[in-house]
Amino acid sequence: MQSLLRKNIEDLEGYTPGEQPKQADLIKLNTNENPYPPSPRVSAAVRKELTSALRLYPDPVALELRKRAAVLYNVRPENVMAGNGSDELLSILMRCYVGEGDCVSYPVPTYSLYETLIAIQGGQSLTVPYPDNFAIPAPLYSQSSKVTILCNPNAPSGSLEPVGEIARLARSVAGLLIVDEAYIDFADADETAIALVKRFPNLVVLRTFSKAFSLAGMRVGLAFGSEDIVRNMLKVKDSYNLCRLSLVAAVAALEDVEWMQRNVGRIQRTRRTLIRGLRKLGFEVQPSQANFVMAKLGGDSIRWLHDGLRDRGILVRFFDTPDLQNMMRVTVGRPQEIRALLTETEALLRGRGLIRKAS
Amino acid sequence: MQSLLRKNIEDLEGYTPGEQPKQADLIKLNTNENPYPPSPRVSAAVRKELTSALRLYPDPVALELRKRAAVLYNVRPENVMAGNGSDELLSILMRCYVGEGDCVSYPVPTYSLYETLIAIQGGQSLTVPYPDNFAIPAPLYSQSSKVTILCNPNAPSGSLEPVGEIARLARSVAGLLIVDEAYIDFADADETAIALVKRFPNLVVLRTFSKAFSLAGMRVGLAFGSEDIVRNMLKVKDSYNLCRLSLVAAVAALEDVEWMQRNVGRIQRTRRTLIRGLRKLGFEVQPSQANFVMAKLGGDSIRWLHDGLRDRGILVRFFDTPDLQNMMRVTVGRPQEIRALLTETEALLRGRGLIRKAS
Repeated sequence: MQSLLRKNIEDLEGYTPGEQPKQADLIKLNTNENPYPPSPRVSAAVRKELTSALRLYPDPVALELRKRAAVLYNVRPENVMAGNGSDELLSILMRCYVGEGDCVSYPVPTYSLYETLIAIQGGQSLTVPYPDNFAIPAPLYSQSSKVTILCNPNAPSGSLEPVGEIARLARSVAGLLIVDEAYIDFADADETAIALVKRFPNLVVLRTFSKAFSLAGMRVGLAFGSEDIVRNMLKVKDSYNLCRLSLVAAVAALEDVEWMQRNVGRIQRTRRTLIRGLRKLGFEVQPSQANFVMAKLGGDSIRWLHDGLRDRGILVRFFDTPDLQNMMRVTVGRPQEIRALLTETEALLRGRGLIRKAS
Repeated sequence: MQSLLRKNIEDLEGYTPGEQPKQADLIKLNTNENPYPPSPRVSAAVRKELTSALRLYPDPVALELRKRAAVLYNVRPENVMAGNGSDELLSILMRCYVGEGDCVSYPVPTYSLYETLIAIQGGQSLTVPYPDNFAIPAPLYSQSSKVTILCNPNAPSGSLEPVGEIARLARSVAGLLIVDEAYIDFADADETAIALVKRFPNLVVLRTFSKAFSLAGMRVGLAFGSEDIVRNMLKVKDSYNLCRLSLVAAVAALEDVEWMQRNVGRIQRTRRTLIRGLRKLGFEVQPSQANFVMAKLGGDSIRWLHDGLRDRGILVRFFDTPDLQNMMRVTVGRPQEIRALLTETEALLRGRGLIRKAS
């Protein structure tokens, strides 16, 4: 049977998501979930939808959700498409635009799912390394790939490009530009590129409900683009790609943006504490505009630190690749979770003799 | 931007699902939904899951659901994969096995989504017409396509192939055989091919919770196949393809198979009434093993009948293609819904002078 598989699938490693443990007593700072619950309106809306109507198919084109998002983000419903998380929207875009041998450019390190989705299509990943300050690499402006992807703020760096720079990139690239704004609600300033989709017919902006809206468990994302792009994405998506409960959950979340913003404010404050604390322990920490920070300890792999924290009940994300193995990515949790992380990290560093004097 | 699109996507019509109207007062017999609600255990399980845990990602590999399905269907969890409806599982299989120019064979008429999914991959649909009795067409046994698809029971005919014939087909075809068993719980005899996946490494069987389990609104499907096939499908699927609530809903539904079977029994009884009634009105009706029947009125398009029923608040499925335009597909609803359908159909036939004497 292996021989029937497409060659690119045979060679595929597949994307490995961060650990989703069963135990509820772990401090989970590894997959950038929001430490605060979603708006109470979400569960109220889901409860209301929990009728015998579950036997009926959902709205195939998610019209209520798209209308609500269109009002909030000041576009038309025809510019919005709903997906089963922004992952599905990325996958649909790849299936629309990337055929066998087609090139896709993006700066690295970034969300490694891009590479997997391109490989599934039999496309070619053209990666450009970020400079030390994580500005958009110059070669990205002058390439002619069919598709260019920018994660903004970027993961795992947390760095943010201002919207003016996104406009310049959209104007420069030859093909489609996908801007993945999964984390943009956590930025200190409003730098979303959604308004640009009216000016640039080659721009798609992706959003998710998994992070700022605290709905990772419900799998909802939005794509914003020209009517033309949305029409093509609708042709490729599964007929009923979102369940009834996810649809009403997302609408309810958009009806309570204030709830989301309050949680974002808390996370921004805790982020400052986290960055300060990690720097004090000797880490090099990027200024982050996302709900996570990347902390680098110069030198060799810090798998020992990841493993040590795990033994003490704290999960952080470790990437076992040559360029990322001396870093950990820490999700900004609740203040007490971050205090525990800093305390245990300090103890582990001391145990290794990496902190000598009393702090 | 159009020029950036892959040519096959540009040419794609896209699958058009049946109408999902807003009005609750319509008699909806057009998309094969179950007229009875899901088990009360489903909403109980969803309510229990409606906690702040919505902020956390779901289990990426749906282990609880796969374990439960493995016990029920007597396979191992490694032989089961969960998807966002069987549509997503079909799409994943196409992405695993169908590259540009690869051939996929299947008998027609059948579920027209197959054609769309093959076209998205840039593959070639090789269709073989069903004979009048809807047996598997002989040429299907002797072709060498990479993938063969059989919908069993078939839509829209409702015809069923016994499991022995599926084994013969799996042995005969050169490539992968996908058996889409969306409707098999409605068959009078147990003819599922799931047990065959242990014998045939080239067989995948698809199931859905949308029909017999009354959960079209929750989007859950299952694929059964060799460990090898499941491992490859897992590589291609989105990281978190099912939301938390769909996962617990499906587990709860499998914990109450009796509920499903009771509803299936009712639908089987109403199906007999429906077939008898339509035949009495002059329709040629296939014996159906699904939760719908196909009724043919010999001659020209019966769009007028579909439109007339819609004006009277009854939705049935009409396919506007040369070979199906003299048929309607009617979902088996509740007894009173089927009585209304028969009464209104009779009135419309009389209005056209197609029934002359009193019945």
